[in-house]
Amino acid sequence: MKAIADIDKMKVFSRIKRKSGKSIGLVPTMGYFHDGHVSLIRNARKQNDVVVVSVFVNPTQFGANEDYRQYPRDPARDKEIAKREGADIFFCPNKEQMYPSGFSTSVEVEKLTGNLCGISRPGHFKGVSTIVAKLFEITKPDIAYFGQKDAQQAAVIKKMVADLNMDVMIKILPIVRETDGLAMSSRNVYLKKNEREDALILHQSLKKAEDLFAGGERSSRRLVSSIKEMIDSKKTVRVDYVKVVDCETLKAVDQIKDKALMALAVFIGKTRLIDNAFLKVHDE
Amino acid sequence: MKAIADIDKMKVFSRIKRKSGKSIGLVPTMGYFHDGHVSLIRNARKQNDVVVVSVFVNPTQFGANEDYRQYPRDPARDKEIAKREGADIFFCPNKEQMYPSGFSTSVEVEKLTGNLCGISRPGHFKGVSTIVAKLFEITKPDIAYFGQKDAQQAAVIKKMVADLNMDVMIKILPIVRETDGLAMSSRNVYLKKNEREDALILHQSLKKAEDLFAGGERSSRRLVSSIKEMIDSKKTVRVDYVKVVDCETLKAVDQIKDKALMALAVFIGKTRLIDNAFLKVHDE
Repeated sequence: MKAIADIDKMKVFSRIKRKSGKSIGLVPTMGYFHDGHVSLIRNARKQNDVVVVSVFVNPTQFGANEDYRQYPRDPARDKEIAKREGADIFFCPNKEQMYPSGFSTSVEVEKLTGNLCGISRPGHFKGVSTIVAKLFEITKPDIAYFGQKDAQQAAVIKKMVADLNMDVMIKILPIVRETDGLAMSSRNVYLKKNEREDALILHQSLKKAEDLFAGGERSSRRLVSSIKEMIDSKKTVRVDYVKVVDCETLKAVDQIKDKALMALAVFIGKTRLIDNAFLKVHDE
Repeated sequence: MKAIADIDKMKVFSRIKRKSGKSIGLVPTMGYFHDGHVSLIRNARKQNDVVVVSVFVNPTQFGANEDYRQYPRDPARDKEIAKREGADIFFCPNKEQMYPSGFSTSVEVEKLTGNLCGISRPGHFKGVSTIVAKLFEITKPDIAYFGQKDAQQAAVIKKMVADLNMDVMIKILPIVRETDGLAMSSRNVYLKKNEREDALILHQSLKKAEDLFAGGERSSRRLVSSIKEMIDSKKTVRVDYVKVVDCETLKAVDQIKDKALMALAVFIGKTRLIDNAFLKVHDE
């Protein structure tokens, strides 16, 4: 595995590979790898000739009062993991390269970002779509891999690719969870012991709602109430939102037909965590 | 020459050409060709293996009260001209293909669009950068050609390409003028006889300012005054703006050093026309 920090070198590498007919799989990350990232890298390794893992903590997707500075970083460990998992390139540009002085362009997916995390994190998805558009141009992937935990991000990236006629296949892989059910996240490291215990309520409340759904409940309002009630029972956890939305448009759904996305965000202390589950009448 | 209306067919064509090592030159236009367009096509023809001329009157770059519906169109004549000039592909998608239902993504170059035409045409450059990003993805050009008459557009496209790490070389070709000096524009067809006569003042006033500059005048304020005074002498012409700006950042320049862009926009009746000239201490 080769580490590349320079954008132009990365461009040359990916263009040479593409020209010689090799397929490129990209795993764009903010680093501090957990098994969710590993799952993305492993899939990319299986499905492509060349695997590029990018690590860039993207400042433009953090709000002014968010955790850009504190966001956990461990590039040496990330590099070891990427290597172990068979990545070919560890692409780690710095922010001066990605956003040189005078940078002024953005890519925005407007309709999908007015709900869910888009409300509590204004500008977040504009930062995400812009950096992903840049990474796609630099690394020219055939397939790019993202995790389902960031459900809204997944929908936004897919929409950007379709709307801008980009030549990238987007693969969204299932949420990877700790053995006790907590969705893996680089931010879990922020949690104190009691917060970590309370954090289990995210997955537990989603499971409960899934059970209610399986039992015939189709009212979003009642499913959301059930989740909120469970979350409110935990002292350290404050609901940001709990919503049932259309899987693609992310618009609110009142009465669920075939399928919907149940998504939530909470604050546990200062840590903001998200989780979600698909509700489907028939397993696909 | 082959006409292609379908985005996917255009994608397949450009990808086959790129894979076989052919260079692609793109001339993105809104059609209703004049010699300015012809100059772009001829340059593309000289410098590339394959020439794609696109014609798409892009609705998103017209304001609500602007001339999208009336904008002159003559695809049959455009096609003839493109063929005569040796284009390989005449790409003419329709707006339902370019902006399908639910379309929600935009590309925006923020800093450069807060001045000049960006003030009187809010949203215009967002429409331009979005459609050009799409055309680049669809046609995969090595070089794309634009005219200097749309000076701000040229700066915006260059900035978008740099910021988003796109692999396209942007070539900006000089303004092509009628024999009497009027900058060629598809919108000139709107002008009534007396308006057409008065429209000469655009070029004449820019020439006058160039003369003053050549004679040592470096004050933007005085150059702008000279132009405004000349334009104000014409009854049918109303100034939208006359400004001297930095060639790249498009920020106002008070005292000109080596080089600046002098740009203007006017309304003649209902027709909005633009023109510009570089002011350079030494010819490059």
